[in-house]
Amino acid sequence: MKFPFKTVALIGKRSTPEIAAPLLELAAFLEGTGVGVIVDELTAPYLGENAYTVATLEEMGRAADLAIVLGGDGTMLNIVCALAPHKVPLAGVNQGRLGFLTDISLDNMLPTIGAMLEGKFVTEQRTLLQAKVLREGAEPQSALAFNEVVMHRGGASSMMEFEVAIDGEYLYKQRADGLIAATPTGSTAYALSAGGPIVHPALDIMTLVPVCPHALSNRPIVLKSHSVLEVLIHRCTEASLRFDSHTRFDVCEGDRVVVSRFPEPACLLHPEGHSYYHTLREKLLWNKTY
Amino acid sequence: MKFPFKTVALIGKRSTPEIAAPLLELAAFLEGTGVGVIVDELTAPYLGENAYTVATLEEMGRAADLAIVLGGDGTMLNIVCALAPHKVPLAGVNQGRLGFLTDISLDNMLPTIGAMLEGKFVTEQRTLLQAKVLREGAEPQSALAFNEVVMHRGGASSMMEFEVAIDGEYLYKQRADGLIAATPTGSTAYALSAGGPIVHPALDIMTLVPVCPHALSNRPIVLKSHSVLEVLIHRCTEASLRFDSHTRFDVCEGDRVVVSRFPEPACLLHPEGHSYYHTLREKLLWNKTY
Amino acid sequence: MKFPFKTVALIGKRSTPEIAAPLLELAAFLEGTGVGVIVDELTAPYLGENAYTVATLEEMGRAADLAIVLGGDGTMLNIVCALAPHKVPLAGVNQGRLGFLTDISLDNMLPTIGAMLEGKFVTEQRTLLQAKVLREGAEPQSALAFNEVVMHRGGASSMMEFEVAIDGEYLYKQRADGLIAATPTGSTAYALSAGGPIVHPALDIMTLVPVCPHALSNRPIVLKSHSVLEVLIHRCTEASLRFDSHTRFDVCEGDRVVVSRFPEPACLLHPEGHSYYHTLREKLLWNKTY
Amino acid sequence: MKFPFKTVALIGKRSTPEIAAPLLELAAFLEGTGVGVIVDELTAPYLGENAYTVATLEEMGRAADLAIVLGGDGTMLNIVCALAPHKVPLAGVNQGRLGFLTDISLDNMLPTIGAMLEGKFVTEQRTLLQAKVLREGAEPQSALAFNEVVMHRGGASSMMEFEVAIDGEYLYKQRADGLIAATPTGSTAYALSAGGPIVHPALDIMTLVPVCPHALSNRPIVLKSHSVLEVLIHRCTEASLRFDSHTRFDVCEGDRVVVSRFPEPACLLHPEGHSYYHTLREKLLWNKTY
Repeated sequence: MKFPFKTVALIGKRSTPEIAAPLLELAAFLEGTGVGVIVDELTAPYLGENAYTVATLEEMGRAADLAIVLGGDGTMLNIVCALAPHKVPLAGVNQGRLGFLTDISLDNMLPTIGAMLEGKFVTEQRTLLQAKVLREGAEPQSALAFNEVVMHRGGASSMMEFEVAIDGEYLYKQRADGLIAATPTGSTAYALSAGGPIVHPALDIMTLVPVCPHALSNRPIVLKSHSVLEVLIHRCTEASLRFDSHTRFDVCEGDRVVVSRFPEPACLLHPEGHSYYHTLREKLLWNKTY
Repeated sequence: MKFPFKTVALIGKRSTPEIAAPLLELAAFLEGTGVGVIVDELTAPYLGENAYTVATLEEMGRAADLAIVLGGDGTMLNIVCALAPHKVPLAGVNQGRLGFLTDISLDNMLPTIGAMLEGKFVTEQRTLLQAKVLREGAEPQSALAFNEVVMHRGGASSMMEFEVAIDGEYLYKQRADGLIAATPTGSTAYALSAGGPIVHPALDIMTLVPVCPHALSNRPIVLKSHSVLEVLIHRCTEASLRFDSHTRFDVCEGDRVVVSRFPEPACLLHPEGHSYYHTLREKLLWNKTY
Repeated sequence: MKFPFKTVALIGKRSTPEIAAPLLELAAFLEGTGVGVIVDELTAPYLGENAYTVATLEEMGRAADLAIVLGGDGTMLNIVCALAPHKVPLAGVNQGRLGFLTDISLDNMLPTIGAMLEGKFVTEQRTLLQAKVLREGAEPQSALAFNEVVMHRGGASSMMEFEVAIDGEYLYKQRADGLIAATPTGSTAYALSAGGPIVHPALDIMTLVPVCPHALSNRPIVLKSHSVLEVLIHRCTEASLRFDSHTRFDVCEGDRVVVSRFPEPACLLHPEGHSYYHTLREKLLWNKTY
Repeated sequence: MKFPFKTVALIGKRSTPEIAAPLLELAAFLEGTGVGVIVDELTAPYLGENAYTVATLEEMGRAADLAIVLGGDGTMLNIVCALAPHKVPLAGVNQGRLGFLTDISLDNMLPTIGAMLEGKFVTEQRTLLQAKVLREGAEPQSALAFNEVVMHRGGASSMMEFEVAIDGEYLYKQRADGLIAATPTGSTAYALSAGGPIVHPALDIMTLVPVCPHALSNRPIVLKSHSVLEVLIHRCTEASLRFDSHTRFDVCEGDRVVVSRFPEPACLLHPEGHSYYHTLREKLLWNKTY
């Protein structure tokens, strides 16, 4: 991480014109402090005329010392996998309710980011997963995930049947709607709905969560992040492999899906005083009942 | 139910030539006792030349006093919804492991069915569900289910969002992979994998089981079978409505799905001494652990 | 149910002096409409001097046409099993947050109860359970439950081991913390925490919910309320049988616990417009997330 | 670990005379290879007359280079916490079905242990937990656990109420039957019955699993093993703190329970070719269904 941050990339929530005003306000503030501003090419059309450099994700990855996302956790999710390989740290401003990933409130945006530019922030490394689909006679397809990689039967009328190995060792055959490999970050997303545990985000582990398994003893399994998960698909008709919500590959019988940790973690910046447990409590409504 | 049974329809597992020998053996046995035999048109091609009348499901529904299925629970599932409206009782011979629905073993087929022809059987009424998709400007589509009606997002990258009312009263809005309306019969099928309870098959109730709900307090709900469930779809992209595994309709935003009990229950015949709890114990491996 | 109500019994939350003011207000209101008032003997000491007849639960059971509880669901729970055998209907005023059983708000108490005295109420029959402990050489002990009967290992270091039969038919042997037999009313209480389904309160069924079962396929089972559940205890050291939270019997190895529906249901009165689904939504925070 | 092993301690399953023959056979074999044998003082009475030195757990901890347990996982569990602080590695012979901890079969005992004495074994470090009860005006009580520390309401009629902090930061208030802090080893024991995930035993983490929590969003949480868990008890009447199944302390309102990782891990020795996934598959019956 290059600090102090000389160039900051700004990314707004897609198809959300309301994001223009706070984003321009933030851009002006950043320029006022002497920081260079570049703007995501998909966000730029919503901003009206302005003098900021427009950049692709790839260009932001190369040029930015920090990326600030304005939107919600979904916006952050779309951006992390593109910027993490370039080691660009990310911070998130939430336009609505507090998010797990976007924890700077819009009301307090300028002073909070001002403080972060002066080094008042907490750094957090978060595990990413990579997965590839291996099919005989075809090019492998691969992508990254920040929350989870999901293999799912889709709309097919029968459950998928597949065989799982971990680090080359046979684990089980299973019939299920699908299988989730989740990062700690993803443990409070889809994996939680499927019955997985909450995992502290600082842990460097991977969680395997079956989706609606036929055998009731097929429960979530917590693995070393260094483990390599290999899934051989025995039966399916309309199945696919989904990465967060940004990428999807079709999979078919005989395909092998290999999931492993991506070598470079994502780096998130939080304002000082940030509390994961506070966010957890708010999001899971733990403060509403006793 | 017309007893004694004068005409028996025979249905074999689809695409399973091995079923020919026991099916022909059973047909000959039935003829030997003076009972008329008709054979399912999709089973007939596997039987070689023979003198039995071939019939469609519709024709079997009108002509048969009893239908005997040779195969597994899946075969039974495909047939029940076609024959139940005609009040044809069903019995099932299992070619493999004991099934929930096909509880006559192949080894013991002739004496067991012989006894049943003499009235030695137990009758069981099982609830069926019907569901229809209502879309503005389109013909409603409807079908029956013996296990469950499943509304599911399919392969879409986001959860479905929908609103549920029961008997016209608002229940909740929900984000989830989907929603299952299960019969007691279906309680040990997909609904169980999704976290639903086991329901004694003699009960006349409907179970609502969310599939991977976003809100962790969205739990299975057991309702009166007479309740009418209405689901208004707020958001989805590739969702569908599945009936057991035999029928599927696409659904889209704005559609209304209405689920209710089908007025005519299915009638299953079991050999005397049949035990639901025994089957449950075997299928869920309760006898393997203590 | 005797209507119009000539004598109303009033019961307040135990050890809660704050209940005195609204209870006396209600008593005066009832007298003003010509209805006789009797007061629970455990509530009376908190009321200061007054002219109301004080009565035991037994006496209220014989004399009252209606019992009104001021407090929370816990207060109602303590009273139902004593009054239901006398067919006294019950209504509940909640001093705090809306309850499942106490659904008249304190703010609106007088007009709501006024309307109910004129017949503007909804009647609901709720299933009760009875259970007895059979031990060789000892008197059977038995009690009633409105929410649930719980057999639990207590503080013992090992799980209980027991065998369950339903209607005389063997179901399974099991190791677990315990076993809950819940009414539909109890389905949103302890049974829900143990993984049981929500059951519509108008259903006449019983739910069997294992508490932390050793075998992961031991799942909640929904039974006919007419079923008789029999549990033979194989191993335990400090186990007990709890009825809601009002009664507890010790159980030991060799004991038989028999649970069945109590012949007389409890009768709850709700104000017109009462909505079970509304209460469910509030209690489970379904309106807080989407 | 001191290798080669010069002194081996033998511990048999408590109150199990059948263990005498294989234990004496093993002792003779060990002596034959020149290894010194000492015998657990609680096992010795079952062995008849012999010349082996009898030792307490404490003495075995000081004198033994290796401890071999004959029995089941329960026997191992009773011994680990006494020997781990002395860095004595453990191996387990199972007299019945394969165990998670006792993975040498009785049939193959001598050749397997012979090979292990020659260095053919796999070493595994397993996390232990320590917990103490802090009460004003009383001596702290503390103990170790290999599977889990369980705080539980016992036979009380109401749920416990308590407040949890992790590393000094407030997590939540909760009502529940109790709370489990489990090691990876314990993840397939009681924590699994309570809904916790399976955790690979090589991970150095702690899992927090609520037992029957009142709030449905209180789900298992996976924490760094270095985290310090602090529980302040708000309400309880008969609660206790249990360590595996060997130790129990009463706890009461106002007590603080502090759980942390024990600095010294337990060291288990497995025969070469040992497979955790194989054991998991057998124990959870994954090979019985597909």
